[in-house]
Amino acid sequence: MTDGPASGTDTVRTLGEFGLIQQVTAGRAQPPTTLLGPGDDAAVVAAPDGRVVITTDALVEGVHFRLDWSTPRHVGRKAVAVNLADIAAMGAVATSVVVALACPPDTPASVAAELMDGVAAEAARAGVGVVGGDMVRAENVVLSVTALGDLGGRAAVPRSGARPGDIVAVCGRLGWAAAGLAVLGRGFRSPVSVVNAQRCPDPPYASGPEAARAGATAMIDVSDGLLADLGHLATASDVGIDVRTDRLAVAERLVDVGTALGADPLHWVLTGGEDHALAATFPSFADLPEGWVTIGSVVLPDTGVTVDGTPYRRESGWQHWS
Amino acid sequence: MTDGPASGTDTVRTLGEFGLIQQVTAGRAQPPTTLLGPGDDAAVVAAPDGRVVITTDALVEGVHFRLDWSTPRHVGRKAVAVNLADIAAMGAVATSVVVALACPPDTPASVAAELMDGVAAEAARAGVGVVGGDMVRAENVVLSVTALGDLGGRAAVPRSGARPGDIVAVCGRLGWAAAGLAVLGRGFRSPVSVVNAQRCPDPPYASGPEAARAGATAMIDVSDGLLADLGHLATASDVGIDVRTDRLAVAERLVDVGTALGADPLHWVLTGGEDHALAATFPSFADLPEGWVTIGSVVLPDTGVTVDGTPYRRESGWQHWS
Repeated sequence: MTDGPASGTDTVRTLGEFGLIQQVTAGRAQPPTTLLGPGDDAAVVAAPDGRVVITTDALVEGVHFRLDWSTPRHVGRKAVAVNLADIAAMGAVATSVVVALACPPDTPASVAAELMDGVAAEAARAGVGVVGGDMVRAENVVLSVTALGDLGGRAAVPRSGARPGDIVAVCGRLGWAAAGLAVLGRGFRSPVSVVNAQRCPDPPYASGPEAARAGATAMIDVSDGLLADLGHLATASDVGIDVRTDRLAVAERLVDVGTALGADPLHWVLTGGEDHALAATFPSFADLPEGWVTIGSVVLPDTGVTVDGTPYRRESGWQHWS
Repeated sequence: MTDGPASGTDTVRTLGEFGLIQQVTAGRAQPPTTLLGPGDDAAVVAAPDGRVVITTDALVEGVHFRLDWSTPRHVGRKAVAVNLADIAAMGAVATSVVVALACPPDTPASVAAELMDGVAAEAARAGVGVVGGDMVRAENVVLSVTALGDLGGRAAVPRSGARPGDIVAVCGRLGWAAAGLAVLGRGFRSPVSVVNAQRCPDPPYASGPEAARAGATAMIDVSDGLLADLGHLATASDVGIDVRTDRLAVAERLVDVGTALGADPLHWVLTGGEDHALAATFPSFADLPEGWVTIGSVVLPDTGVTVDGTPYRRESGWQHWS
């Protein structure tokens, strides 16, 4: 067992499970919601609401990230961010995460430490405690994160509450991660802004609870792509949704990248996943909180998700197994 | 996407992520603590105490289990049981679990379904909801489970509260999983009782909260082996512990297996992991709850863990990475 920082030649095998767990959790600052931090059989976290929101999402090397495209720190941040976005999409404020890290025994200890540094950094950025972890050996690097959140006395905002006549709004970036993926796929490493958006999303965590307070009727985290995730929301709510492209801002940076690569930036905005923006429906009379932009409306059932009144003709969303 | 049960030729690839998630979560009964079950961005679970206990542990094929030794159902049950034992060891009552399942794309859908059936079966046995999940592709089967629990107004029982003069007690089986591992390692499949103990533990979940109510000063789940885990407790509490072998019951079945294999069954009891019994310390005047047996005493610091007053000479515990 080694208590000091990892040297360049240590691997997770030489460092040992207990040394690694101690190294990545010792001395981390904890928010007031962490009542008992890591090191015991389990942690204790405040749940002042009397209910707790919980979600889990795992990232796998070669499927959800590549360590030649992303730094371990980006990957650690992303594994936390995708979970915190799910908590926000319920209208809750995240309180804590736990992490199960699987990696090959010959993984440099510095890589494992950087992964966990990224986990800690994103958690700290969101005011969330890293309250527990498990380290196991496997063929791939797999980061399984579970996040908890508190509803502060509000009802959870499900996917199923949208009603005809509601407006549809989004908050956060759309299409940036897809543009970054296109850039990386061509072997480029810039523009850094879109490449970094693919490496780690920047979800608007606080905007989920703000939407809940403003009366959001349904909400979802845009992980698979705007049209795909609005499709999930529409199905759960048994409504149709029409998106107006004249309401969708296509950032100048995406236009530039699209021009350079011969790609349609609007397609990235409509179908690109992994940005973890939030999409929600609100009563037509609602005052949208800062950062939320109206992009369409909820319509009568049986029309699915349409774009400017017609079905979108190009493939949208993706599945991990295909 | 397939809604019906998996046929023999389906794989997780052909079934698709969404079909698999739906198949393993749809229609499962939920306990009253599950306020919003699977299917949204996150679930909502009751936390009546205002605090929530949380732990995570992952099992990896080839490291923690072998699918030629265990059925997928055993593995699913074990992945839940090891987490629920950690919740019990804090003195809490488990309320829910979430599961991230990683598996190769060519995994038969029936295997994934049986893994999740095992998860659901052990959760149901403990009155716990399976409230969320994620399915991802990886080289190994990795089951990452996170469990939540409720303290019912009690203080959590940490590892660090043991005091000189306390008694040391255990509840649950010791040495059975190690005996089962020895049997399997020699190529045998019986006696079934010890082999099944290795495939899936039978932790005494209710005995954790009962120990807390009876005034337990420190508690730990015996996952690495009795002496190793008492060592963790002694270190956290800054005390020594002496175990009396005349107090340790060695089951007749373990004596028989030891005789057949030429092994010392007491060594299994003292050092065998994976049974997930509970070990705790109590004030000397405490009335031990049913199922708890005194096996030793807490002594002054600097003596570590001793057996009948002397250091145990044989190696104990194990590390995943070595």
